[in-house]
Amino acid sequence: MLKNIENTGFTALSSAEGKRIANKDGTLNILKTGLPFWERLSLYHSLLRMPRWKFLLSIILFYGTLNILFALAYVCIGVEHLNGIDGDNLPGFLQAFFFSSQTLTTVGYGHISPDGLLTNMVASIESFTGILSFAMVTGMLYGRFTRPKAYLIFSDNALVAPHKGGTALMLRTASYKNNHLTDVEAQLTAAFHIEEEGNTLTRFYPLKLEISRVNSLALSWTLVHFIDEESPLYQMGAADIQQTNLEILVFVKGFDDHFSNIVQQRTSYTAGDIVYGAKFRPMFRKSDDGSGTLLELDKINWHEAVGLTEPSTSAINA
Amino acid sequence: MLKNIENTGFTALSSAEGKRIANKDGTLNILKTGLPFWERLSLYHSLLRMPRWKFLLSIILFYGTLNILFALAYVCIGVEHLNGIDGDNLPGFLQAFFFSSQTLTTVGYGHISPDGLLTNMVASIESFTGILSFAMVTGMLYGRFTRPKAYLIFSDNALVAPHKGGTALMLRTASYKNNHLTDVEAQLTAAFHIEEEGNTLTRFYPLKLEISRVNSLALSWTLVHFIDEESPLYQMGAADIQQTNLEILVFVKGFDDHFSNIVQQRTSYTAGDIVYGAKFRPMFRKSDDGSGTLLELDKINWHEAVGLTEPSTSAINA
Amino acid sequence: MLKNIENTGFTALSSAEGKRIANKDGTLNILKTGLPFWERLSLYHSLLRMPRWKFLLSIILFYGTLNILFALAYVCIGVEHLNGIDGDNLPGFLQAFFFSSQTLTTVGYGHISPDGLLTNMVASIESFTGILSFAMVTGMLYGRFTRPKAYLIFSDNALVAPHKGGTALMLRTASYKNNHLTDVEAQLTAAFHIEEEGNTLTRFYPLKLEISRVNSLALSWTLVHFIDEESPLYQMGAADIQQTNLEILVFVKGFDDHFSNIVQQRTSYTAGDIVYGAKFRPMFRKSDDGSGTLLELDKINWHEAVGLTEPSTSAINA
Amino acid sequence: MLKNIENTGFTALSSAEGKRIANKDGTLNILKTGLPFWERLSLYHSLLRMPRWKFLLSIILFYGTLNILFALAYVCIGVEHLNGIDGDNLPGFLQAFFFSSQTLTTVGYGHISPDGLLTNMVASIESFTGILSFAMVTGMLYGRFTRPKAYLIFSDNALVAPHKGGTALMLRTASYKNNHLTDVEAQLTAAFHIEEEGNTLTRFYPLKLEISRVNSLALSWTLVHFIDEESPLYQMGAADIQQTNLEILVFVKGFDDHFSNIVQQRTSYTAGDIVYGAKFRPMFRKSDDGSGTLLELDKINWHEAVGLTEPSTSAINA
Repeated sequence: MLKNIENTGFTALSSAEGKRIANKDGTLNILKTGLPFWERLSLYHSLLRMPRWKFLLSIILFYGTLNILFALAYVCIGVEHLNGIDGDNLPGFLQAFFFSSQTLTTVGYGHISPDGLLTNMVASIESFTGILSFAMVTGMLYGRFTRPKAYLIFSDNALVAPHKGGTALMLRTASYKNNHLTDVEAQLTAAFHIEEEGNTLTRFYPLKLEISRVNSLALSWTLVHFIDEESPLYQMGAADIQQTNLEILVFVKGFDDHFSNIVQQRTSYTAGDIVYGAKFRPMFRKSDDGSGTLLELDKINWHEAVGLTEPSTSAINA
Repeated sequence: MLKNIENTGFTALSSAEGKRIANKDGTLNILKTGLPFWERLSLYHSLLRMPRWKFLLSIILFYGTLNILFALAYVCIGVEHLNGIDGDNLPGFLQAFFFSSQTLTTVGYGHISPDGLLTNMVASIESFTGILSFAMVTGMLYGRFTRPKAYLIFSDNALVAPHKGGTALMLRTASYKNNHLTDVEAQLTAAFHIEEEGNTLTRFYPLKLEISRVNSLALSWTLVHFIDEESPLYQMGAADIQQTNLEILVFVKGFDDHFSNIVQQRTSYTAGDIVYGAKFRPMFRKSDDGSGTLLELDKINWHEAVGLTEPSTSAINA
Repeated sequence: MLKNIENTGFTALSSAEGKRIANKDGTLNILKTGLPFWERLSLYHSLLRMPRWKFLLSIILFYGTLNILFALAYVCIGVEHLNGIDGDNLPGFLQAFFFSSQTLTTVGYGHISPDGLLTNMVASIESFTGILSFAMVTGMLYGRFTRPKAYLIFSDNALVAPHKGGTALMLRTASYKNNHLTDVEAQLTAAFHIEEEGNTLTRFYPLKLEISRVNSLALSWTLVHFIDEESPLYQMGAADIQQTNLEILVFVKGFDDHFSNIVQQRTSYTAGDIVYGAKFRPMFRKSDDGSGTLLELDKINWHEAVGLTEPSTSAINA
Repeated sequence: MLKNIENTGFTALSSAEGKRIANKDGTLNILKTGLPFWERLSLYHSLLRMPRWKFLLSIILFYGTLNILFALAYVCIGVEHLNGIDGDNLPGFLQAFFFSSQTLTTVGYGHISPDGLLTNMVASIESFTGILSFAMVTGMLYGRFTRPKAYLIFSDNALVAPHKGGTALMLRTASYKNNHLTDVEAQLTAAFHIEEEGNTLTRFYPLKLEISRVNSLALSWTLVHFIDEESPLYQMGAADIQQTNLEILVFVKGFDDHFSNIVQQRTSYTAGDIVYGAKFRPMFRKSDDGSGTLLELDKINWHEAVGLTEPSTSAINA
């Protein structure tokens, strides 16, 4: 009987038909409710993780809004309180808008300047708001740059290949940027939907790797799980995999030389990603001028068919 | 005889009647004296930890003070040394104030400009002060954003539930923001007031958890301490708990994916927080559209009464 | 025979008469030569570690120098190329100086503005220099704030106190700021000058602590090394300590809650710091209003004399 | 038979004649292809690692390009829309260029100011671009300062010296800046080209160090690998080393006191770097005024010839 691992942090979930636990990019399919929206979201985390274009748009919207709000304030007080307005042929609101922009960014040309107590006060507040906002943007930009990422690619497929007289589950990962990971560890976990006391629950089992740790991820690393009698996958045929919604959760962690920090990355493989009877082909070769090794990142999923004996029974070993 | 743990860092304190060691939010009730105030406080730490409104107020006060001080300097030198003053109808000090503001924020419109050696020097110093202050504020804002926090909520109550034929002390924690903790460890410590040689001392005992470490805190985690013969809580009834000012200190530590840093959080449960004869109800369920799992954070303390055999003696096991 | 520890990183140094290896503030007495000065010093490290007043002075000198250099450039090109000069009664160089200042800080009032190709180019270069310098200062200021420090104070003296029927070497440390250290470890190493093959060498021996690790340094922590037969200090009298230039090197490391980083601190005790026959008095007590514990930091070295049996021989155990 | 280490992260590479795996500065000779250029490079990493002069040039180019692009925009709209142009004798484009510069850096003198809707809009966009760019440069500058580096120098040569009746491979390292490394670990790996099944492959073997970890790298540290029967280098003569393209890969890791972070550094020694029959001379001595220890960094490779028995066979032990 396999020992269900209790310490994954995933209590047995009621089965969600067809829905995977983790996505290919590593995010988890868990929704949280019960606390107000603003308490559940960390604005900083969201700003840090959103795509580049979305982040830039947020900043533009943010400054644009501040700009307009202050411009409205100047208009309310009265645009005649902005010196130098007359010399231009733009409408009053537009002139207030551009003056507001010049104050917010602290350019402060001065051809338009505040006149009178109220306008001066608003301008003063606006210039301070400008530098505080700028301080925040600097912090967030820096946070985005330095967010440690592992920059790993994984093979699209996980292969079941002949290995040491039996079979093994294999998948491959490589580092695709010009960074260097050391002390790299990997963990594979298999998630099955099991019938227990009439309920469908998800249970988690560790998949032991032949090598779970490399000193340095310079090239590619093929993670190998030997499917022996102790493996949860022992004697599972293709039909069993379908039936149990098997999902292989992958977790890789290492120390990144550039960030000088621990980095992590997750992915997952579902039944449809598993190829029976194949083995990986090398994804590196000598470089053309013989000067070094060439790692061909687009070949990370490169595999060829290999004969495999079908498992004799189709019982799930659980 | 239980082994008092000596390495908590808490030497036996003389008992403070009724006062807890740690508060629910994790802060400790220890005052420090003997060094001058400014040496005992880390200004940076305080600025980092104070509530958002308090921090903003500090910045506003700081800049306002600088603004006024420099304005006074201009007035002392003489406001006639500020070109462009005449063109306005505000009192001299106010004009100096706004000029000071425009210099401090480096907006520098120029409709008012410094004239003469002294005023130019003060303005020069003020503009440098402005950019140095801004550099400090940027640093502090960034420090506040990136202060790694665990963002955990804990159940209000700790329950004593039936477990494996005996009883167990249970409490529950969950991560409430959209972050992801890995390698999460928890420690429970029980603090009792004991009579020893006529003094009342506080002694600390570890409470062994069935699972003290989870790989990933994706959902909720129920910490379970089985009250067997080795437990300090063995055969303690409600009266004993009252008498000894029992306090359960909770410490949780994990690696946060977003901060790429170790995060920690503490809390504590006193006698009044412990509920006898109850067990937690699940706080997650399948989401309505069946697309995933829903974690209901407001149900973290959701429990139901369960029958429990009262301990036969009320002796404290110490 | 004691096992000399080889892995301290301190190879046996030729003895430096009377000179200690580490100072009380933890710095080491090692000079490095053989590489050019600018390669041996990390400017960033020096700027980070220098006292606050020295750092401020460096920044003022740096900006002042840039200011003057650019002012000289404007004068060389000719101050008549600065518009608005005439309207003031200051000498040309001073006007150029203040214009330079207004450009460097990007205040840019505009009552003086550049005229002609050369002056415009110099002003353009100066404004970019200004913002780059400002970026550097922001980085350095932030680096200074966030430099993780342990903020520990140590007792001035190390005491030899009666302990468990024998004697023990004790010293005390406490955290003096409002931070919180967890997972705190300490190491004590004894350094002796030994005669070996006609040379005087320094050898290092570990001093085993009864408790080398506490979970949380909330109050004070007394480090206790029991002087049993295995201790390098066994049967050393006051004369032996003098003769061997005994130095106790202390190293404490912990995880700081605020910096979310590992922090370290070192100190050392020489023969003159060791007090025979004394024990520490508690440095904490119940606070006056009974509301909590009061840690009296100025009492960290508070000890009282206690009788002690003199070691019967004075042989050095090496 | 030696156990080939499988967990280096370097799968057996097809031999690259004469080309080393790692360079003296620690970089690896691996090229990656198969993904578009912009996905394979982390711009942030490159900007962080490039030499100082190259980084400065990049920033100058970046700002210069922005400057010119916006100037062209003003010219396209028409320079007559810039107030104050007439008062100068420079060509229109140059005036637009300098106005663009004053806007980008937010100096904003104001003697030239935008007139009309389009020019005002472009100026507004330019000032925001200016502050966002500045935020990015601040972040990158800070990233460059704080990039944790180990600052280690290594001896040019690795020596084969007489040691404990046999021979040992030795190399030396020292910390050359005014930083302090603690918990320093080192790993040596030997890489050989081996004939296997008609192919030439590279295989990796660990070289066991007598001391692989020091508490503190204050002076120099000589890494010693005793060449006993278990060593891969046992009975290898100079000819064998040539033939197998022996490469010694060195990896040192420690905790840096200033960066409060783990730092790493790599280097490698090829056949040409190994000197037979020599031993290192001390690189430290008492300082001239007897006040401390002097570490002479330029003497790190200082060695003297020592007689050595040639290995009796020249078989490669693989």
